[in-house]
Amino acid sequence: MENNQSKVITRRDFLNYAGKVGGTVAVWGAMESLGLLGHSLASAEEFQAPKKSDLTMANKNGKKIIILGAGIAGMTAAYELRKAGYDCTILEARDRTGGRNWTVRGGTTETEIGGVKQTAKFDKGLYMNAGPARIPQHHITIDYCRELGVELEVFANSNEFTYYYQENAGPLSNTKIRKGTIKTDARGYVSELLAKVADKASLDAPLSKDDIDRLRDYLKREGGLSSDFTYHGSNRRGYKILPGGGLQPGEVDTPYNFSQLLQSGMMNNISGDYSFQQQPMMFQPVGGIDQIPKALEKQLPGVITFGAEVQEIRQSSDGVRIVYQTKANGNTKEITGDYCICTIPLPVLKNIPADFTEPMKNAIKNIHYAETGKIAFQFKNRFWENEERILGGITTTNMDIAQIWYPSSGYLTQQKGVLIGYYNFGENAVKYGNLSLSQREALALEQGAKIHPQYKKEVENSFSVAWHKIQYNQGGWAEYTESDLKNYYPILNEPQGRIHLAGEHLSYLTGWMAGAFESARIVVSRIHKEVLKEGKSPATVG
Amino acid sequence: MENNQSKVITRRDFLNYAGKVGGTVAVWGAMESLGLLGHSLASAEEFQAPKKSDLTMANKNGKKIIILGAGIAGMTAAYELRKAGYDCTILEARDRTGGRNWTVRGGTTETEIGGVKQTAKFDKGLYMNAGPARIPQHHITIDYCRELGVELEVFANSNEFTYYYQENAGPLSNTKIRKGTIKTDARGYVSELLAKVADKASLDAPLSKDDIDRLRDYLKREGGLSSDFTYHGSNRRGYKILPGGGLQPGEVDTPYNFSQLLQSGMMNNISGDYSFQQQPMMFQPVGGIDQIPKALEKQLPGVITFGAEVQEIRQSSDGVRIVYQTKANGNTKEITGDYCICTIPLPVLKNIPADFTEPMKNAIKNIHYAETGKIAFQFKNRFWENEERILGGITTTNMDIAQIWYPSSGYLTQQKGVLIGYYNFGENAVKYGNLSLSQREALALEQGAKIHPQYKKEVENSFSVAWHKIQYNQGGWAEYTESDLKNYYPILNEPQGRIHLAGEHLSYLTGWMAGAFESARIVVSRIHKEVLKEGKSPATVG
Repeated sequence: MENNQSKVITRRDFLNYAGKVGGTVAVWGAMESLGLLGHSLASAEEFQAPKKSDLTMANKNGKKIIILGAGIAGMTAAYELRKAGYDCTILEARDRTGGRNWTVRGGTTETEIGGVKQTAKFDKGLYMNAGPARIPQHHITIDYCRELGVELEVFANSNEFTYYYQENAGPLSNTKIRKGTIKTDARGYVSELLAKVADKASLDAPLSKDDIDRLRDYLKREGGLSSDFTYHGSNRRGYKILPGGGLQPGEVDTPYNFSQLLQSGMMNNISGDYSFQQQPMMFQPVGGIDQIPKALEKQLPGVITFGAEVQEIRQSSDGVRIVYQTKANGNTKEITGDYCICTIPLPVLKNIPADFTEPMKNAIKNIHYAETGKIAFQFKNRFWENEERILGGITTTNMDIAQIWYPSSGYLTQQKGVLIGYYNFGENAVKYGNLSLSQREALALEQGAKIHPQYKKEVENSFSVAWHKIQYNQGGWAEYTESDLKNYYPILNEPQGRIHLAGEHLSYLTGWMAGAFESARIVVSRIHKEVLKEGKSPATVG
Repeated sequence: MENNQSKVITRRDFLNYAGKVGGTVAVWGAMESLGLLGHSLASAEEFQAPKKSDLTMANKNGKKIIILGAGIAGMTAAYELRKAGYDCTILEARDRTGGRNWTVRGGTTETEIGGVKQTAKFDKGLYMNAGPARIPQHHITIDYCRELGVELEVFANSNEFTYYYQENAGPLSNTKIRKGTIKTDARGYVSELLAKVADKASLDAPLSKDDIDRLRDYLKREGGLSSDFTYHGSNRRGYKILPGGGLQPGEVDTPYNFSQLLQSGMMNNISGDYSFQQQPMMFQPVGGIDQIPKALEKQLPGVITFGAEVQEIRQSSDGVRIVYQTKANGNTKEITGDYCICTIPLPVLKNIPADFTEPMKNAIKNIHYAETGKIAFQFKNRFWENEERILGGITTTNMDIAQIWYPSSGYLTQQKGVLIGYYNFGENAVKYGNLSLSQREALALEQGAKIHPQYKKEVENSFSVAWHKIQYNQGGWAEYTESDLKNYYPILNEPQGRIHLAGEHLSYLTGWMAGAFESARIVVSRIHKEVLKEGKSPATVG
């Protein structure tokens, strides 16, 4: 250690220190393997796409894989397997690929379970990403975008110029306040509080005097404190009057009262941006999230049968047999193959007769899927940019709508824009899901207008989706409790004879496209290994 | 107040509370004028562009304005004045517009004072923004981009996946660590420390028991603390092994030792992102920062005389007379007009004979300009994206290079990329400025390679700039001390008879394009008012 000051060493310190190799390590590779480089984001296993030569050498060409569902998982599985020349067929119930990866444009239609037909009226060039919408850097989704040539742009997940807005939360209720302002005040007060007690060295912590000095110096910067370690406000929170040219130094406003700030609950939303999945920077495909399934689809000419609704999933020791109905004419058909990859979401799968074991059937029907919904509004003017200077990002509120998403493209130059007017979960999503389309629109307009009074004058049309009411999904994503992870998740991840489940629900990244990609890779590797082993130890049913 | 708990009211509380109108205020407009809406970013004065009708009605058409410098300030002044029909001529020493707003592309050349000619070798489509590079949402620059039709994209100023890297800073030296990891640990430990003392209610602060509870709840979320308010690490800091599909929950690493963290100094850089000028989201023009001067130039056909180096700035009670040299042939020319707007940076201006008062001349020569420099490297592969998963953003280090900027465009799809390899100030900038071009390259490569060992293998070419050595600038931006602001700044902002100074140096936004835009608007308004008043009270010299 290079620090010559006498230092209090606690056991935790020691373990931390011993756990790392001390001193200078010059070799990048060595550090990588020692896990010392903060950037090493190793996957548990390196994926190897199946190769044609694998099959040829083992004399295993011609294997037929039936894949159920042309979402991310299904198409990725086909894409990877076809690299080795597997004969893949995808059965897709809808007339489009993507599954939950769905971009709604003008003319898009949807009818929810028990609902009326809805047709989007967005202008050309405008769209709504109705399901997934953003990608963090560490997700494998990024790698697939690179491989498939999908162009990315920044998704503005975190913008200090967006708002918090709270109701029934004390004196700061019913006031839209910029997130940067709240964060500045929060940091200021909290830093001040700790700086004062750090001074007293009354902390029950293994810090030397030098450490305390460094900590106070950090707190002064972190909080924007004055020289006496007090928070008096800061220009970081914004201005009452902006600094400008000439003799205009600008004027900073006084900070909010700390007790009122705490009462408002706004501070509790700050950490939402810290999660590893949501840290900046995040990304989206240019022109709609469905550029990803479109790029996959392009790699799968002739592979996908659309409008094919699976009726039965059967298997024997020799192969699989899928019974499906062609929606166009109601005819029943069958297709056979060597293996099946089933990516059908569990709430739908549980109602399809299948040759699974009882424990598997039990697991399938016990997993709850998230109720979640969104609405998108087309506005004839981008008032949030033109009048409120918000370019992208998310406003957060404790009203039912939960959040407002501003578009991350077409800044300033696009006349019109599509906002997400609510994106909620649980009981709020159930509530909105139970409303008619026009009731959803009315309620979201009413709530949103408290934040953006321009809503009513500028709105042109809307499109809403309640994922738990979408026929082939019946939920946004799988939600595993601790008990589910223990009792059901391992079963779901076991192949059922020749049938393998894949999808975001077979991952620790539920709700993210990366979960579907990762799961597909695992199943592809597993089947490929199985095929290469065939004849040595047979696949068994159940 | 809606809080029924008995509450300690301090004087500061009372002042804060009384300073705001309490209770619910439903009318947005009223709140706007009361300054209660966190979004009100009022300028000190609303700018009104001069109108043709103003001049016609006052019979003041035909006024001739000579503008020195075709940077942002000069061209904006001409642009706004021409809306009213003023006859504007801009004299520009260079053969291009933009001044410090300069995008270096393949073929761009520059020769620094006392230096050798440098020619950029960037591939088509790649570029370096050598001066300004990013725009916050509240700057008037955004409004001009909208008005002029300049397309914007996000400038990734803050990316948790970029690194801190410190030397001579304790046990965490010589280790690149992701910013998100450092921030998570810092928040964790600091939140833990405060949560523990908050529990004891030993804080010298006017917080009720409910407030303390809310504060601790906030700290738990903020720090990612366990139920006993201790920081044990968090998946927010990233993973040793990422969560994936199937049975891969991922593995979180242990946090850094807090004392080592404090010693490293990395925590002190965290607040750099909090300044009001640097908060997310920030923006850049698509295709280079010089899209802004190009768009202005397009509005000024026939207005700009290039290669015209100002030699003398003269005036009488009747008008102004500018003597300049055409660089092409060395000839001396003169141009006369009614008013002059001089945007020449002060270090250059101080050496040009001018009819200014002595106090003005004294002010001009006493303002220090920042030493600052950048280097850009073209790499044949975007290794930072492909291998380290960094898409845009800035790595920060205490090495001389100070920072590495990753490009905010062409993610994944562009094969090659241009990085900023250093961007430094003060004595580091002087040091690099004194090196030869190849020495700068070598030193920046050597330092950067400690963070990115791929540097040496992938580098193709470089281009460096030391702004204090650029002939027509001799500095990055004006740097005012408190004493300068008191003694010199007001003088600089006073018109000198018919001559008005404009530019970022005549603003509280020095170093930002917005300073130039704001200053130009002020001078335009001032001259226009002067013109309309003419004949009533004459403009005086000195």
